[in-house]
Amino acid sequence: MVQENAVHPLEEVYDSLAELLQAGKEEVLAKANPSKALSLDVIKLASPITLPARIVCQGANYALHRAEAGMKSSRASFNLIFTKPDSSLSGAMDDIQLPSHVQLLDYEIELGLVMKTKIRRPVRVTEENLHEYVAGIIITNDVSARDVQLVEGQWFKGKSYRTFCPAGPFMYWLDPEEVSQIHHLDLKLWVNGELRQSANTEQLQYKPEETIEELSRMMDFDPGDLLLTGTPGGVALKLTGEQLSQLTNPFLPSDQKLTLLLESQAENKNYLKNGDIVRCEIKSPDGRIDLGFQENRVVSV
Amino acid sequence: MVQENAVHPLEEVYDSLAELLQAGKEEVLAKANPSKALSLDVIKLASPITLPARIVCQGANYALHRAEAGMKSSRASFNLIFTKPDSSLSGAMDDIQLPSHVQLLDYEIELGLVMKTKIRRPVRVTEENLHEYVAGIIITNDVSARDVQLVEGQWFKGKSYRTFCPAGPFMYWLDPEEVSQIHHLDLKLWVNGELRQSANTEQLQYKPEETIEELSRMMDFDPGDLLLTGTPGGVALKLTGEQLSQLTNPFLPSDQKLTLLLESQAENKNYLKNGDIVRCEIKSPDGRIDLGFQENRVVSV
Repeated sequence: MVQENAVHPLEEVYDSLAELLQAGKEEVLAKANPSKALSLDVIKLASPITLPARIVCQGANYALHRAEAGMKSSRASFNLIFTKPDSSLSGAMDDIQLPSHVQLLDYEIELGLVMKTKIRRPVRVTEENLHEYVAGIIITNDVSARDVQLVEGQWFKGKSYRTFCPAGPFMYWLDPEEVSQIHHLDLKLWVNGELRQSANTEQLQYKPEETIEELSRMMDFDPGDLLLTGTPGGVALKLTGEQLSQLTNPFLPSDQKLTLLLESQAENKNYLKNGDIVRCEIKSPDGRIDLGFQENRVVSV
Repeated sequence: MVQENAVHPLEEVYDSLAELLQAGKEEVLAKANPSKALSLDVIKLASPITLPARIVCQGANYALHRAEAGMKSSRASFNLIFTKPDSSLSGAMDDIQLPSHVQLLDYEIELGLVMKTKIRRPVRVTEENLHEYVAGIIITNDVSARDVQLVEGQWFKGKSYRTFCPAGPFMYWLDPEEVSQIHHLDLKLWVNGELRQSANTEQLQYKPEETIEELSRMMDFDPGDLLLTGTPGGVALKLTGEQLSQLTNPFLPSDQKLTLLLESQAENKNYLKNGDIVRCEIKSPDGRIDLGFQENRVVSV
């Protein structure tokens, strides 16, 4: 349990985030022992999302990010969904590993929703009962290899390398009456101290309640699964509509797509390189809900 | 343990496919009790792949399927990867649920590889050591809602509805010396008795060994995870290159894409409808390796 800058160990072992969620917030907090508190700074933080977990992601869900990626900025007529594997999860202070073949490494701050209950069939989700489905919220970074993602077309691979999903530092366990704050959180991401992304979850085009309802008609969830709600504008990637058209043309050979993409981004200094520090914060404007911060160093591997 | 048409119960409970695999074939087979044998016909078959499981899929991995989907038939310069959620798994005799909004339901027989070991880092996989990574093989059907898949562009949603991954009837547990047979298996799929797909895994463009090696550089696997190797020609979907270009054009509104897709398939009677029976078989040409059969009825829900 984290309070201010102190970590209070729990006098109980929970084998997974699901077990902890099922025990309930009141019971878990009662196990916290402040007399054994440690400073957050001396602790190696793992991902609060334990494995196995489903990670389901919304794409192109903020107007400004849609526009910078070459798309129409208005809400799409469908909720774009893709996935990341749970092995991409890493801690809030862990290195982001930059694979040697990746030339366009990008960042994407996203509000992560931690699922609360088993979903086994279609459910009706509204702003009023959203607290029955979302246990908590967490900072996530949907790290993306743009050259792999956009040349291959299906996004899974470019978003799935190990360490491509820093999550944490901790899960903010929402009280039911706080869940409506999901819609009013500030997201900010810096690279080497320069502010790159700054937005508010009010701008989400497909809202958590309609997204969970739609997904429930398709698939199952378990407590501790993670839903990433999409990233706002300000990522490194900048595409014109014409460039996007070429990249999605099924008959342009992929080596030509790669050349086109690399040339279009050649003057763009915003992609992540070895040694860069990515910092992410999510909090309510009044500071009452504060998800802490991530600080990840990019390391070539 | 299945022998001929008889199921021999095991005198031991394994909580997951991973536990069973870790116990080892010899130990597990020694627990089979032939005196309590039951006919396979009287048993309700669940998916032998237990949850949680990662399901990673190769797309467009046979020349004839590439051609019928409007693509160049030659091997692509990259291995196309997407995923299905484990909640899409169902048994070999279960109904395939046709969601009411889906208008173009398609079938895709695929050889499924059941992963044998934890993979936590890049590994070198060759024909010679493939048996260290693949425990067994299984019939799978990558059921696909073409209207959702092709209009939305990211394939996850159109391939992920509950019951969209019939798996089984059983896993064929390979002896190490049999693993090379993975490359020489006949796949056959019928709809209402009409043969639609007939191919041999020799035609796989990206082979299991190179695929597992590539994926190991990106993500983790655990015993019991599932790799679907792609479907051969003969699915219902038939697209020209021109139609594929329009469907992948990011500036054609999705309602127009849907209209175009539905019109292009309007005379095509091969899509699955309520009451259809899909039968799948995979076996070696000499019949020594036989994965049994699936028979799934399509049911509107």
